[in-house]
Amino acid sequence: MQKKTYQFTAKKVDYYFDADFSYLARLIDKEHTVLVTDENIFQAQAKKFKGWHTIVLKPGEQHKVQATANSVIEQLIARGADRKTVLVGIGGGVITDLTGYVAAVYMRGLRVGFVPTTVLAMVDASIGGKNGIDVGVYKNLVGTIRQPDFLLYDYSFLKSLPETEWINGFAEIIKHSCIKDAPLFRELEKNKLKYYQKDKAALGKLIRRNAVIKSTVVEKDEFEQGERRLLNFGHTLGHAIENMYALSHGQAISIGMVAACSISAQLVKFKDSEKVIKVLAQYGLPVHTDFDRKKAFDILKMDKKREKKEMNYVLLEKIGKGVVKSIPMVQLEKIISNL
Amino acid sequence: MQKKTYQFTAKKVDYYFDADFSYLARLIDKEHTVLVTDENIFQAQAKKFKGWHTIVLKPGEQHKVQATANSVIEQLIARGADRKTVLVGIGGGVITDLTGYVAAVYMRGLRVGFVPTTVLAMVDASIGGKNGIDVGVYKNLVGTIRQPDFLLYDYSFLKSLPETEWINGFAEIIKHSCIKDAPLFRELEKNKLKYYQKDKAALGKLIRRNAVIKSTVVEKDEFEQGERRLLNFGHTLGHAIENMYALSHGQAISIGMVAACSISAQLVKFKDSEKVIKVLAQYGLPVHTDFDRKKAFDILKMDKKREKKEMNYVLLEKIGKGVVKSIPMVQLEKIISNL
Ligand SMILES: NC(=O)c1ccc[n+]([C@@H]2O[C@H](COP(=O)([O-])OP(=O)(O)OC[C@H]3O[C@@H](n4cnc5c(N)ncnc54)[C@H](O)[C@@H]3O)[C@@H](O)[C@H]2O)c1
Ligand SMILES: NC(=O)c1ccc[n+]([C@@H]2O[C@H](COP(=O)([O-])OP(=O)(O)OC[C@H]3O[C@@H](n4cnc5c(N)ncnc54)[C@H](O)[C@@H]3O)[C@@H](O)[C@H]2O)c1
Ligand SMILES: [Zn+2]
Ligand SMILES: [Zn+2]
Repeated sequence: MQKKTYQFTAKKVDYYFDADFSYLARLIDKEHTVLVTDENIFQAQAKKFKGWHTIVLKPGEQHKVQATANSVIEQLIARGADRKTVLVGIGGGVITDLTGYVAAVYMRGLRVGFVPTTVLAMVDASIGGKNGIDVGVYKNLVGTIRQPDFLLYDYSFLKSLPETEWINGFAEIIKHSCIKDAPLFRELEKNKLKYYQKDKAALGKLIRRNAVIKSTVVEKDEFEQGERRLLNFGHTLGHAIENMYALSHGQAISIGMVAACSISAQLVKFKDSEKVIKVLAQYGLPVHTDFDRKKAFDILKMDKKREKKEMNYVLLEKIGKGVVKSIPMVQLEKIISNL
Repeated sequence: MQKKTYQFTAKKVDYYFDADFSYLARLIDKEHTVLVTDENIFQAQAKKFKGWHTIVLKPGEQHKVQATANSVIEQLIARGADRKTVLVGIGGGVITDLTGYVAAVYMRGLRVGFVPTTVLAMVDASIGGKNGIDVGVYKNLVGTIRQPDFLLYDYSFLKSLPETEWINGFAEIIKHSCIKDAPLFRELEKNKLKYYQKDKAALGKLIRRNAVIKSTVVEKDEFEQGERRLLNFGHTLGHAIENMYALSHGQAISIGMVAACSISAQLVKFKDSEKVIKVLAQYGLPVHTDFDRKKAFDILKMDKKREKKEMNYVLLEKIGKGVVKSIPMVQLEKIISNL
């Protein structure tokens, strides 16, 4: 096991990489801890939960809503949870986002830790302190930014992770390599998903490297004034088409990254679109861009990140170097319709 | 008008004392602002709201709940509120607590200001960043600590404030004088409620002085590790009996303060219980302590502030000097049953 500590604004977060789930009992007192997970994880990894107080939620994004938060709060009250209680979210991003949110508001803040169980949660969702819930069609409309106290990584959870969820996580890993880490990109070019699924050591190194990339970006810019925006590479258009075509998040941002590469080629002379497309396809991600341009642009106009007549867009100058550019909406509309 | 700035952890809060409501338009842009108030205030002070986007809620503590927060969130979505939107809570503590809570979680945090319209909100509820809602019988169970951006004081709101609400506010003012400000206590001894209701200048000075007392305490100890606990003087037992006898908050803490004086006399040789009782009565507050001891103690045992086998209790060493003492529960039970 390896421990690493990151300092966010007013809060220190401990990361336990390569740890065994049982180590949790050394970090916190079982009696004052409530685990929160979902039915899939609870069933697939039942043994790990023995002896812990656990709240088990229905799985899926459709349950990342206030009604579920209310139900967790009711259950906490029923168990007599107080300021000494620690919550631990054990799951994918849905569970860590929801648990982080409840912990932020129950008695004005309980201690909280995460044990991410999807690749996506390990390299992305559980890191950085953003938590929240969806309201109607608006994703993450309600929530806070509040760092967890610790993250514990036990890769054995991934044994039961469905293939499609592996691919979702790798979309974010490829994203990280594109905006921040050219050597990582070259490593990804050389391998396939199967390699990481079989080689435990390689997987551990990969996840840790990506957790460090995201943590370093957030540490520099916790409240998303600059650097943190880079993490939106592929996400602006990705979010627009995710619902339009009922794509998985990984599929949507894969197409979004392909589009962002093409915009980068036009605006900042990015030369390696082909390489990015090849790696995405290699990890099972779609790279075609035959979506409805007009409709996608209309949704994108409503995006939270829009500021008046321009939009901040994440582009690549080269592989490993993302940049944020403000693009006038009229220009962006033209570029997207010609993609 | 007078401006004062307090620095809380990571946030500067501007106080505009003795201001006119119309000054709000100079602080923030009407187009990007949504006011939140309740029906009583909206009706009594209709003119002030002309030209502002306003959400009007049903009045009363029973509406300080998640369902109301949800409804405010839905209305914000419908109005297209985004990160540039500023919320302003215009009301008593119910409105400022709820508005502060919604502002803390909508899009992970909007800017928020308060215009307190009750004496209690002016000297207490709108200050210090605690916000939240009730869950079932549990008051303020859900919420955050997050400072507002500004507070604007327009005393003309108090013209329509019912007498019982004035008295509620004065209970907190007497509390402040007991724990922190002996000269203020002597001033209160000399006057009556009527005096402050008629003399605008005296009222303005009084409110400002009390806002400063609370702000200074919170500035020293935003997250209630020590000093801030003093503000709970009269509140431990007060909260226990508030629901038992359907008392107003001011009435309940008045009885709580009388009891705390008596405990102070026993444990820290406090000598001026009679003076405190006299001032409370002078401002229309009840001072009898003939409540059900056993039942009150049972509720008190469940109090959030209980830590294992002891309870932190705020006592007076002398008028103007509150102290926090940890009292063993067995001893406390005995003392209360003999009050
Ligand atoms: N807070 C952030 O910064 C951030 C960043 C990215 C994404 N997110 C959020 O994360 C969510 C997506 O996260 P996700 O992809 O992990 O989704 P998820 O939590 O829905 O998990 C995906 C699926 O895998 C199942 N599962 C999880 N772990 C498993 C395991 N070990 N074995 C078997 N099944 C398992 C879940 O039950 C679920 O069905 C979204 O709500 C998104 O908004 C948040
Ligand atoms: N956040 C904190 O630190 C803090 C501190 C103390 C109390 N509180 C909270 O404050 C709340 C109590 O505050 P409150 O006593 O101001 O209650 P309130 O907001 O319910 O107001 C009392 C009544 O007066 C009416 N009213 C308010 N201003 C008026 C005006 N100018 N003219 C006519 N009518 C008016 C209201 O409609 C209501 O009926 C409680 O929920 C309590 O938990 C919070
Ligand atoms: Zn993503
Ligand atoms: Zn009070």
